[in-house]
Amino acid sequence: MPRLRVHNFAMSVDGYGAGPRQSVDDPLGVGGERLHDWAVATRSFREIHGTDTAGADAADTGLDDRFIAAGDSGIGATIMGRNMFGPIRGAWPDGPDQQWRGWWGDDPPFHHPVFVLTHHEREPVAMAGGTTFHFVTDGIESALRQAFDAAGGQDVRLGGGAATVQQYLRAGLVDELHVAIVPILLGGGERLFDRLDDAASGLELAEYVGSPAVAHVRFTRPSR
Amino acid sequence: MPRLRVHNFAMSVDGYGAGPRQSVDDPLGVGGERLHDWAVATRSFREIHGTDTAGADAADTGLDDRFIAAGDSGIGATIMGRNMFGPIRGAWPDGPDQQWRGWWGDDPPFHHPVFVLTHHEREPVAMAGGTTFHFVTDGIESALRQAFDAAGGQDVRLGGGAATVQQYLRAGLVDELHVAIVPILLGGGERLFDRLDDAASGLELAEYVGSPAVAHVRFTRPSR
Repeated sequence: MPRLRVHNFAMSVDGYGAGPRQSVDDPLGVGGERLHDWAVATRSFREIHGTDTAGADAADTGLDDRFIAAGDSGIGATIMGRNMFGPIRGAWPDGPDQQWRGWWGDDPPFHHPVFVLTHHEREPVAMAGGTTFHFVTDGIESALRQAFDAAGGQDVRLGGGAATVQQYLRAGLVDELHVAIVPILLGGGERLFDRLDDAASGLELAEYVGSPAVAHVRFTRPSR
Repeated sequence: MPRLRVHNFAMSVDGYGAGPRQSVDDPLGVGGERLHDWAVATRSFREIHGTDTAGADAADTGLDDRFIAAGDSGIGATIMGRNMFGPIRGAWPDGPDQQWRGWWGDDPPFHHPVFVLTHHEREPVAMAGGTTFHFVTDGIESALRQAFDAAGGQDVRLGGGAATVQQYLRAGLVDELHVAIVPILLGGGERLFDRLDDAASGLELAEYVGSPAVAHVRFTRPSR
């Protein structure tokens, strides 16, 4: 049965998935980009994102690389919150020059349908390489149904941010949650494990292993 | 210059230093004792606490053991919150049979002066083995002064709970903070990194290393 999976969610020791004072200029919050240094250093990240291919041979191929690769494996669709898709708030601007199309350039690293949770309707946006952004206004369960339909029997990946992951955790819909604990303190920002009540208690530890850069912890929900 | 050090503070992945619904029967909160399994398994813990000495040879002597031993090294006094000392709230009971003397039996594993933060005055309690419990009612800075005086040039260890560590962090008085991240979810309880505003941002990463059981992260304050 296809599953809903969270992978490589980077969290500081003080629990934040993004730094404080997020803004258009600082989409990950102050200091938040340090949460992703370990990921960017892996060969799989560079291959997935098509960056720095010249240096890919020198990139990390160890434990962190395995986790980055796993996050891209067997995935047929992605769900994300609007704030992960872009910095725009409120209604989508109309003009063709104002059409935000994500952070990832013309050929985003998804290559499958991406469902963006939003309160504001918008027509789908087809990008190069097989990525199409769909905008879902009728809630997380609808987005999940659409994503499973689009995934063609493969799993669905749940991106961020923290608030989006929390919504799915509260609804008991997350089958796998992989958190990479980064040894930094951010001092503030958006907490991952917050407003969950007892929702995380249904998850069981599947794997814990520390790499030289981060501590990987993977929880799964017992099979339905 | 003597320093104020926090060692082996066990924290769940969701950030709790104790489980939810703490009570007299459940002093670490529901599930909270699981935070300490890794510590209890070490040889140093068994030597310090004088427990299970017959099995000490079989106990862990690896990375976790090194951290437990470090937490007991060069320490001349300890400070703790009242809730770590005992379950009693409000004024101390009078009767000789009602005198709570800590969780640790007749010969507590400190062997030096221990300063307990409380709002209620009480005479010092001398135990076997060199431990004396002093009760400090005039605040954290007074307790720290008294502890440094009593430590005779050695460092002072800051015990728990989370609220006590937070008070000293907010006051900028913590020189070293070692957290052991335990790969469990508690779902609720007393958070370590909370109500700190920007207080943790003055700490710098000194060491990160994962053992098979927990991820050790040690922060230090730049020298004064």
